[in-house]
Amino acid sequence: MAQGKNALLRSCFGLLFAAAALFSAHAQTDPLPSWNDTGPKKAIVAFVGIVTAEGTPNFVPVDQRIATFDNDGTLWVEQPMYVQLAFVFDRVRVLAPQHPAWKTTQPFKGVLDGDMKAVAATGEKGLMELMAATHAGMTVEQFQQIVSDWLAKAQQPRFKRPYTQCIYQPMVELLAYLRANGFKTYIVSGGGIEFMRPWTQKAYGIPPEQVVGSSIKTKFEMVDGKPDLMRLPEINFIDDKDGKPVGINEFIGRRPIAAFGNSDGDQQMLEWTAAGGGPRFMLLVHHTDAIREYAYDRQSHFGHLDKALDEAIAKGWTVVDMKSDWKSIFPPQP
Amino acid sequence: MAQGKNALLRSCFGLLFAAAALFSAHAQTDPLPSWNDTGPKKAIVAFVGIVTAEGTPNFVPVDQRIATFDNDGTLWVEQPMYVQLAFVFDRVRVLAPQHPAWKTTQPFKGVLDGDMKAVAATGEKGLMELMAATHAGMTVEQFQQIVSDWLAKAQQPRFKRPYTQCIYQPMVELLAYLRANGFKTYIVSGGGIEFMRPWTQKAYGIPPEQVVGSSIKTKFEMVDGKPDLMRLPEINFIDDKDGKPVGINEFIGRRPIAAFGNSDGDQQMLEWTAAGGGPRFMLLVHHTDAIREYAYDRQSHFGHLDKALDEAIAKGWTVVDMKSDWKSIFPPQP
Repeated sequence: MAQGKNALLRSCFGLLFAAAALFSAHAQTDPLPSWNDTGPKKAIVAFVGIVTAEGTPNFVPVDQRIATFDNDGTLWVEQPMYVQLAFVFDRVRVLAPQHPAWKTTQPFKGVLDGDMKAVAATGEKGLMELMAATHAGMTVEQFQQIVSDWLAKAQQPRFKRPYTQCIYQPMVELLAYLRANGFKTYIVSGGGIEFMRPWTQKAYGIPPEQVVGSSIKTKFEMVDGKPDLMRLPEINFIDDKDGKPVGINEFIGRRPIAAFGNSDGDQQMLEWTAAGGGPRFMLLVHHTDAIREYAYDRQSHFGHLDKALDEAIAKGWTVVDMKSDWKSIFPPQP
Repeated sequence: MAQGKNALLRSCFGLLFAAAALFSAHAQTDPLPSWNDTGPKKAIVAFVGIVTAEGTPNFVPVDQRIATFDNDGTLWVEQPMYVQLAFVFDRVRVLAPQHPAWKTTQPFKGVLDGDMKAVAATGEKGLMELMAATHAGMTVEQFQQIVSDWLAKAQQPRFKRPYTQCIYQPMVELLAYLRANGFKTYIVSGGGIEFMRPWTQKAYGIPPEQVVGSSIKTKFEMVDGKPDLMRLPEINFIDDKDGKPVGINEFIGRRPIAAFGNSDGDQQMLEWTAAGGGPRFMLLVHHTDAIREYAYDRQSHFGHLDKALDEAIAKGWTVVDMKSDWKSIFPPQP
């Protein structure tokens, strides 16, 4: 009968041990399998270990574990042009039949003729006209639908897959790893906030309220007794360069302890992050892999990386050499 | 010996039952003890029951349970004047010795003389001058410190307690109740975003990144190699009336399913919330209790409630009659 009691105890303990083993196996699974075991991965894991070690001087309470990520070139492909620019060009082609004058007016003519030099020659004014024609004049919800419909069909020209599958698998794993360690992960992008929000949850696990980006103004209107938010052809905020710390402060109201970028547009975000107290982590993705993705930095128009790279090297920020530090680039084909 | 086994089983089950009883007792504890069992409390509990009932048509997934709260007059006292205005007046008095010209220049003279009519006569221009003098010209962190220091000492003139203890206990319970049911609770206030963020976590359990409010522009600057965000004397965004749905869309990127206000400044937020699909909850706090707090609505300068009250009555939104629906107003004295 003592055996009966022991058997019961054994099965109790057995369950406990099984649970513990499962937990331990889980804890030992590599959370960053697409990263090679080189410097950047080691630096990330060390940083997370330091800020989550309760009872040590560098421990950071969960609510202060804020990590901000640039999007274009940091989380997804930004070559041969920013995805949002490809969207603008496609929209101009779709809307052209309703605007006969576009055939003879820049920058629209340039887009329709595929003459990028002519488009570029119209400068900021031309870009604003393109933005107004493709991003304004509809409700917020209508625009989200337009973006979602476009992303469902559009393909990245070189990799022949949807843009939302041209995201960097190592960064997707990093986002999940940080969240599993109590971090709140934010996008802080020069791209349009409303262009990103429809798909960042599915692609990155980042909900709309954790997306900070550039925006145009919107206006509350009552249309037939129904309230709408109309998108106006007027810049509200440019979340790039100096604007990134401003956007972070406005939207999040806390200074990140970790920030991730890939271009000079991210330099001030990384500086702002670095200047806080306690442990800090700053990382730049350096696009060095022309075979598997693209190789570009100081000469590139999109994702121009020059001064920020110098500062990263001088200050010992982590620089990912995409070619040698990443085992794979994109998620497996679904 | 069978007894030994049974005793062990009994203690196992005993523990389980104790845990279950504890859980059940907890579940049955009134989460809104400062609310009388009148209409508003019943409506709140019914709404939460509906949106959290999995497998039913009105179930709302956790990530879409967004609730937005006005602050002044909805979560804390806004009489005899907005708290932020009391802060402005106190700051003018503190800074006056450094600005001798204020003694003879409106609106500053009016503040120093306690002549509110003279201040009011300077209109929006005067208010902007007061804001510039008290809210700009320092870093974001310096301003947070000034606000925190002021709140630690300032007292609400009638109740002789810190403003952060002139918060409405029933609303604090409501915030906690919603969060316990998977809601994300946001402040969406006409008040200054940086004026609120230093203390909303402690007072309401609302972290800085869930505070939406009015703001002035900030500028990223390098000062002796240290990056700072300087506060500029320039309006960035007014989060009031039409601005509330705009602010909600910009900061949260989702439409709330529940919204709480107390004045015409909240009308568009409630309309925007009401116009979404699925179950909706709109509530106005009506200040009807001159004995325990204040009684004001259509004639009041602060917290003017007129058109929104008419719309609430016409559309069947919930209206809290503070006098009869709230058992207590403020948290117990600490």
